[in-house]
Amino acid sequence: MPEFLRLVSPGEALAKWLSAIPQSSGLRIEEIETVSALDRILAEEVASPHPLPPFARSTVDGYAVRAEDTFGASPSAPSYLRIIGEVAMGSVSTLQVSGGEATVVHTGGAIPSGANAVVMLEDTQDVPGGEIEVHRALGIGKNIIGEGEDVKQGEVVLEPGHRLRPQEIGGLMALGKLQVSVFARPRVAILSTGDEVVPAEAEPGPGQVRDVNSHSLAALVRRSGGEPVGFGIIPDHPETLYAEARRAHSSADLVVITAGSSASARDNTAAVVRRLGSPGVLVHGLAIKPGKPAILGVAEGIPVIGLPGNPVSAMVVAGLMVVPMLRRLSGEKRPSLVATVSARLAANIPSEAGREDYVPARLEASPQGWIADPVFGKSNLIFTLVRADGLIRIPPQATGLQAGSMVNVIPFD
Amino acid sequence: MPEFLRLVSPGEALAKWLSAIPQSSGLRIEEIETVSALDRILAEEVASPHPLPPFARSTVDGYAVRAEDTFGASPSAPSYLRIIGEVAMGSVSTLQVSGGEATVVHTGGAIPSGANAVVMLEDTQDVPGGEIEVHRALGIGKNIIGEGEDVKQGEVVLEPGHRLRPQEIGGLMALGKLQVSVFARPRVAILSTGDEVVPAEAEPGPGQVRDVNSHSLAALVRRSGGEPVGFGIIPDHPETLYAEARRAHSSADLVVITAGSSASARDNTAAVVRRLGSPGVLVHGLAIKPGKPAILGVAEGIPVIGLPGNPVSAMVVAGLMVVPMLRRLSGEKRPSLVATVSARLAANIPSEAGREDYVPARLEASPQGWIADPVFGKSNLIFTLVRADGLIRIPPQATGLQAGSMVNVIPFD
Repeated sequence: MPEFLRLVSPGEALAKWLSAIPQSSGLRIEEIETVSALDRILAEEVASPHPLPPFARSTVDGYAVRAEDTFGASPSAPSYLRIIGEVAMGSVSTLQVSGGEATVVHTGGAIPSGANAVVMLEDTQDVPGGEIEVHRALGIGKNIIGEGEDVKQGEVVLEPGHRLRPQEIGGLMALGKLQVSVFARPRVAILSTGDEVVPAEAEPGPGQVRDVNSHSLAALVRRSGGEPVGFGIIPDHPETLYAEARRAHSSADLVVITAGSSASARDNTAAVVRRLGSPGVLVHGLAIKPGKPAILGVAEGIPVIGLPGNPVSAMVVAGLMVVPMLRRLSGEKRPSLVATVSARLAANIPSEAGREDYVPARLEASPQGWIADPVFGKSNLIFTLVRADGLIRIPPQATGLQAGSMVNVIPFD
Repeated sequence: MPEFLRLVSPGEALAKWLSAIPQSSGLRIEEIETVSALDRILAEEVASPHPLPPFARSTVDGYAVRAEDTFGASPSAPSYLRIIGEVAMGSVSTLQVSGGEATVVHTGGAIPSGANAVVMLEDTQDVPGGEIEVHRALGIGKNIIGEGEDVKQGEVVLEPGHRLRPQEIGGLMALGKLQVSVFARPRVAILSTGDEVVPAEAEPGPGQVRDVNSHSLAALVRRSGGEPVGFGIIPDHPETLYAEARRAHSSADLVVITAGSSASARDNTAAVVRRLGSPGVLVHGLAIKPGKPAILGVAEGIPVIGLPGNPVSAMVVAGLMVVPMLRRLSGEKRPSLVATVSARLAANIPSEAGREDYVPARLEASPQGWIADPVFGKSNLIFTLVRADGLIRIPPQATGLQAGSMVNVIPFD
């Protein structure tokens, strides 16, 4: 309780926490197969060993020609060109296109020597004697992708810190880059505390409940590119918690403690963060609902977070704080995009000015678009989140949202 | 070419394709550990074996009391209650709270018999002789979560078709449900065609290029919950393609063929889809750019799609068609949410009315919010997508978008 001096806005708290962890310093690197690197963060610079495409290609089915032979051509005044052969797919032709000549080319095929444009099949007409009429004037380069138009030889195509999405996997394979250096997944130690908490495998006795947070947080960490390491359930005993947190701190890249939610348990967590090392606690208390009793700290370069014990609060704060920290620890450079779904609010939501509220909501399709139906419930109730599709953020200056107004829902997916 | 009779809008095409595949019929089911079930689709109904929480719990640190003993209490006219003990965490007390009595309770602790409200520590004052002053009147149930307030015994908490997100994993573990039945991941056969295409491992000869689409599509399928099965690169030969497609059709839940992009290759794909079985080709040609030459079909209950060979077209159409079909084949019931990022457009984008355009764009942060910078480039250029953060959709009725206007960017992430 005495620790609750000044509540900090979530944005300010995150900035403070992230700024204590330098970008990409000291991250472990591993070399893996490109086809297995989906959603990993690149740790090396990749330059193209050759131009892409490696040769000039046709973008259409038609005839490779000399553009100057088509100047002024139209359906009423066609140019006449003689077909001298066909460029087979997957080969470079020895044909040489000279004035008044054309070769058959297919989409993706190599442009033969001498040609500098491709006329589409639709803009031609066969005429007897191995000739075609050309009905359209072409500029130089028309319907051709030039050699290196996608990527030049030696061009840097990817920088360290870039996440490998499906298109990057395809692009790297196109360059013949079968192995890549990526940053190791950050190891996230998860400690659950509380004398009343028993493992999910156990049958809870009177007054006991099963652990929720270890499992929901491990799943969130895994989905966000981290590797969760479970440290089990720790009793509400300061020295035991300290010993386990010390063990976690020595082996993990991020330590997450879900506090027993009582005031004394919160004080335990804060004391442990301070004892783990300098600078210790950076933020104690967020101007947010749910999630107020969160603790952000850094001990000897390792970030540590104390999450509220209530499952909804733990997940909301983890989404706002742990996920961006994981991006930092993964080496990802791009800021995260918060994509939202616009929806009409189905009910009034009350809120207090001066704090950010996050209200779970269900999204229902309607002919007029999405309807956001707030799922009210105490933040102790995990199934509140199960019933919801996302969160509605109520900014600190607002004192609630009116039914019928449009809101942006941040989907959980 | 002759097949291009009527271009169908992407929305209409998808509806037609999906409606040919019945929801959740004939899907394989497997039983797995709940902690490994992240993002899998539930195949069973889950009812709660017990109420959650299993006993009434305090939501605050304070004293369990009888609400009637606090009626009319205020700081100037407090109620006086005698402390008869403390409820230890993780146990049920044998204490019985009678009129004029209170017990110490911690957040999450069990409410002792006789008590029906909890007064927060902050609303009390210790007085000598083992008594407290209560400064606030409490209603019955104040600061208590009732037994079963989250979930009642026997209540259905999850239905088949529900995706298991982090909160579902936590919720299932809270109920002691360690194993779950989920739908098997759909197997997606990927066939790449083209005489000019060589595997990524090979050094392309003159006129040859490495395979891009197999790899980017496999990554997209994996990310969307499917299991990609590579069928390699098939030459542009109708009988060979048919034989491989037949083999894929007999073992996969979805067949994806990336066509050589020439007109004859497209015709090959359409012919193969027809030969695979009834009803065959449903849609040939989408009113979309890029991606017009796409083919949607169903053969004997198995969906088949022919994607354009151009990497950008292939990815755009796969995102619009393959991903929703994968949700269907995964057993997922909820419609997909297209979340977007609102951004200011940095440049004019031309567009033709009557077709949907999807333009790759890079998102840049600015003090005024996101700026969307279109990445123009021919749809043959895979690095166009590498340079982009998402797609801007231009609706069919628009004839372009103006620089400076606000647009919704669909992020790739």
